[in-house]
Amino acid sequence: MQKHLVYSKDLTKADYDEILRRFNHFVKNGISPDLCRGKVVSTLFFQPSTRTMNAFQSGILRLGGGWIGVMGEEGLSMEKGESFEDTIREYSCFSDLIVLRHPDDDSAERAAKVSFVPVLNGGSGSREHAVAAPWVLMAMEYYLKRPIQGIKIGIYGTPEINRVTKAMMPIFGMFGMDVVIDDLGHFPLPKDIEEKSKENGLKGLRYDKLENFIGDVDILFLTRGLQKGIIPPDKFPKEKEELILKSYKPITEKMRQDAILYMLKPRIFEVELDAEQDPRVAHVKKEPYAELGAALITYYLGIKI
Amino acid sequence: MQKHLVYSKDLTKADYDEILRRFNHFVKNGISPDLCRGKVVSTLFFQPSTRTMNAFQSGILRLGGGWIGVMGEEGLSMEKGESFEDTIREYSCFSDLIVLRHPDDDSAERAAKVSFVPVLNGGSGSREHAVAAPWVLMAMEYYLKRPIQGIKIGIYGTPEINRVTKAMMPIFGMFGMDVVIDDLGHFPLPKDIEEKSKENGLKGLRYDKLENFIGDVDILFLTRGLQKGIIPPDKFPKEKEELILKSYKPITEKMRQDAILYMLKPRIFEVELDAEQDPRVAHVKKEPYAELGAALITYYLGIKI
Amino acid sequence: MQKHLVYSKDLTKADYDEILRRFNHFVKNGISPDLCRGKVVSTLFFQPSTRTMNAFQSGILRLGGGWIGVMGEEGLSMEKGESFEDTIREYSCFSDLIVLRHPDDDSAERAAKVSFVPVLNGGSGSREHAVAAPWVLMAMEYYLKRPIQGIKIGIYGTPEINRVTKAMMPIFGMFGMDVVIDDLGHFPLPKDIEEKSKENGLKGLRYDKLENFIGDVDILFLTRGLQKGIIPPDKFPKEKEELILKSYKPITEKMRQDAILYMLKPRIFEVELDAEQDPRVAHVKKEPYAELGAALITYYLGIKI
Repeated sequence: MQKHLVYSKDLTKADYDEILRRFNHFVKNGISPDLCRGKVVSTLFFQPSTRTMNAFQSGILRLGGGWIGVMGEEGLSMEKGESFEDTIREYSCFSDLIVLRHPDDDSAERAAKVSFVPVLNGGSGSREHAVAAPWVLMAMEYYLKRPIQGIKIGIYGTPEINRVTKAMMPIFGMFGMDVVIDDLGHFPLPKDIEEKSKENGLKGLRYDKLENFIGDVDILFLTRGLQKGIIPPDKFPKEKEELILKSYKPITEKMRQDAILYMLKPRIFEVELDAEQDPRVAHVKKEPYAELGAALITYYLGIKI
Repeated sequence: MQKHLVYSKDLTKADYDEILRRFNHFVKNGISPDLCRGKVVSTLFFQPSTRTMNAFQSGILRLGGGWIGVMGEEGLSMEKGESFEDTIREYSCFSDLIVLRHPDDDSAERAAKVSFVPVLNGGSGSREHAVAAPWVLMAMEYYLKRPIQGIKIGIYGTPEINRVTKAMMPIFGMFGMDVVIDDLGHFPLPKDIEEKSKENGLKGLRYDKLENFIGDVDILFLTRGLQKGIIPPDKFPKEKEELILKSYKPITEKMRQDAILYMLKPRIFEVELDAEQDPRVAHVKKEPYAELGAALITYYLGIKI
Repeated sequence: MQKHLVYSKDLTKADYDEILRRFNHFVKNGISPDLCRGKVVSTLFFQPSTRTMNAFQSGILRLGGGWIGVMGEEGLSMEKGESFEDTIREYSCFSDLIVLRHPDDDSAERAAKVSFVPVLNGGSGSREHAVAAPWVLMAMEYYLKRPIQGIKIGIYGTPEINRVTKAMMPIFGMFGMDVVIDDLGHFPLPKDIEEKSKENGLKGLRYDKLENFIGDVDILFLTRGLQKGIIPPDKFPKEKEELILKSYKPITEKMRQDAILYMLKPRIFEVELDAEQDPRVAHVKKEPYAELGAALITYYLGIKI
C-alpha cells in the first residue's frame, strides 16, 4: 500500500531513525544529482509557504530531478470548478511525490485517499504539519551535533496554538526526551497531545517559568505567535513583552554554552540582532534545507542511499 | 521552415502515427532522462490549465530538461505594456518549445508567426485546442490496448461547444473511425467540422440516442459542460439530468466489456463514485501524462527515439 | 568574502572581460548541461520581469541545474509578516545564487548583507539594474561581432530616467568608449554618473541632435520611455513623436552598414515592423539570453570554463 505522511504518528521510531540517517548522509557527503534524475515532485501550496515548499523544491533539484506545482489556486482548473480530489489525482499522475499545504483540516487525509503517489502533509489547516516532525528532528541533530535521544527540551511560547509543537511532542516522546514548557500562563498543550507523548515514552513533562529551566535545557524552542495580533489581546502577557520583543540576550546569557536556541519560523516580530552572532542561536545560521528535503524525498521514493 | 501545431490539421496521418509510436515507446520502456538534458520548454498559460500545462512540465522533467513559464499575465513585462508578439518572441529565445494557452482565437497563429521555436496550441480561445488531438489519440490507444484504426466512437454531450471534440473529429476521420453522437438534441457538430472529418476518411457519422448505440462503441466520450451554467439554461435537457449527474452505472451496464468510458476533463459536476472502480472507466485511472508530453516534446524537438 | 553584484561598479574591467570570455565560449560551443548539475538559482522577482528573470532560469536549466523563485509577494511567508531580510536569508539557504528585483532602492544592498550566497541585482527601485551592465556588454559584442573596446556609442532617449543607461555609462568608461547622447533636450545623465564614467576612462561625452551623429556610431541605443505616460507630459517632445512612434526607417537609413540599432526592452509603443528585417536592428533577432545568464551564473558560482 502507498505510504503517506498525513500525521507525524504515521512514522515509527525506526522510520525517523532512517530519515535521520539519510539526512546525516547528505550533510556529510553532499547530495548527488544522480539520485533522482527524471523524478518529479509536486509542491501544491494552496496557502503561503517559504520554507516547506522551497526545501522540497531545492531538495529535488539537488537530487537531479525537478518540481511542478501551484501557489494559491490561481491558474488551476479548480478555477473552472474541478474538485480538490480530482486535482490531487491529476498531480499524482504528473509526479512521484506530492507535498501539500491546504487550509482544510482534512485536506491531507482526503488527498492521500485518491493519490497514486505518496502525499506529505506540509500543513493541513490548524490541525497538523506532519512534515515538521522529521524536519525539526533533523534540525535538532544538525545544530546540537550530538544524538538527540533523551535530551532536555525547553519550549517557550504558545504550544496550544502552534501546530509544529503539536506535531513534535509525540515524537519527542519516541526519543525519550524531557520537556519543560513556559506557556506564558495561557497556552498549555492539548491534553490528548500530552497523553500521546507520554504513551510514546516521554521522560518527563512539566510547566515552569523560563528563568527556572533555561540553564538546564539542551534546546530551547521559541514558538511563533509571541506578538499581538496572533495571540488574543486579553491573553498577551504584558510582563513578557520586553523580554521577547527586543532581544535574545536575557535568554542566551542564561543558556548553557553547548545549548541551542531555535525559533520556529517565520518570526514575525522584530528582535534586536544583538544575539544573532551567538553561535547558539541556530535559526539564523545557514540551514540545511535541501538536505532536509532530500532526506524525505529519497525516503518516500524508496531510493537507496 | 519551423513546424508548429496551431491546428490539429497541421499534422498528417503519418505524423500522428509517429507521435503514437513515440508515446508507446515511452509507455513500454519508460522515459530516459538523457533525451533532453539542458532543453527548456516554455509553458505559457494565460488561462487556467491543470492537465495540458503539467503534462508538458512533467514530460520535459522526465526527459531530463526543465521548464519556465507563466500562469496568468502577472509578473510579466506585459504588465508594463509589452505586446503579446514581443513576449512570445522573447520566450522563443529562452527555450526550445512553447506550449501556449491564450483567450484570443488567433493567439496561436500570431505566436507561430514570431516564434523562433515550435509553438504548440494548448487552447486558443474557443476555436481550437490542437494539442488535444494527438493527446486524445494516445489516450485512446493506451486504454483500449489495441490499434485505434477503424474503431467505433460514441460521443455523448455537447460537441458544438467542446473544443476538444472539434479538434478530434477530423483526426477520427484520418483513422477511418465510425462516429455516433448523442448531442442531447441541441449541440450538433459545426457543419465544416463534419465535412472536414468525412473528407479525411470518416467511416460514418450519425446522430442517435445514447441507449441505441451504447452497446456497440469501443469508446464513449463524455464532453465537459453537461451542467447548468455552461449549457444555456433553456437548452439543458431536464430528462437527462438524472442519468448524468448522479451515476455512471446506467451507462456502464450497457457497455461492452472491452469498451472504454472516457470523460474529457475537467469534470465539474460531481458524479457518484459507484462506477469508478469499473476498469472501463478510464479517466480516473493513473493517466500517462508525462508520456503524452514527452511524445510531443521529442517529436517537435526532432529528438531521435 | 561573498561576492555580490549590487552595483555595476562592483565588477572591474578584468571581471567584465572574464564574463565576456565565458559568454563568447557559450555562444561558440553551446552550454554543457554537465556544468551545474544539482545547482539551484533563486529568481526573486517582487516586480514584473520577462527578460532578466527568464534569462537566468533558462541559463541554469541549460547548465543542467534548476531554479526556484517568486513572482510578486503572493504565496510567501512575507504575507504572514516575515521580513525581507529573513526571506532573503532563507532563499540563500535553498540555493547557490540569488537574482533579485525589488521596488526598494536599497533592496539589493540589504539582501547582500544577509545572504549566504551571491546576490545579483536585477533592478532595485529606480536606482540600479546592475545585471544590465554585463548583459548589455555581452549583447553589444554579440551583435557587433567585433571587440567593443573604444567603439562609438549613440544614445537616443531618456538617460536621466533609464536605469540601464545609468548602469552602463561607467562601464562604457572602462572600455574607453566615445558616447554621444540625444536626450530630447530634457533627459541628461545625472552629473555623478557622467563624472564616474569619465573617471573610468570614457573617451568622450557630448550631447547633440541624433541627425548629427547617427552616421558615425557603431551602436545606437534607444531607451524605454519614449512615450506618453512614462515621460512627464510637459516634457514629451512633440516634434519627435513622428520619428519614434511610427518607424525605424528614418534612423536606419542614416546608419552605417556595419552599425547596430538596439532598443533597451521592453518596448511599449508600437513601431512599424518595416525595419525589422534590417539585419542591423538587433533587438528583434534571436537573442542569446541563456548564454548571457549562463555566463553570469558560472562566473558567480566559480565554475571553471
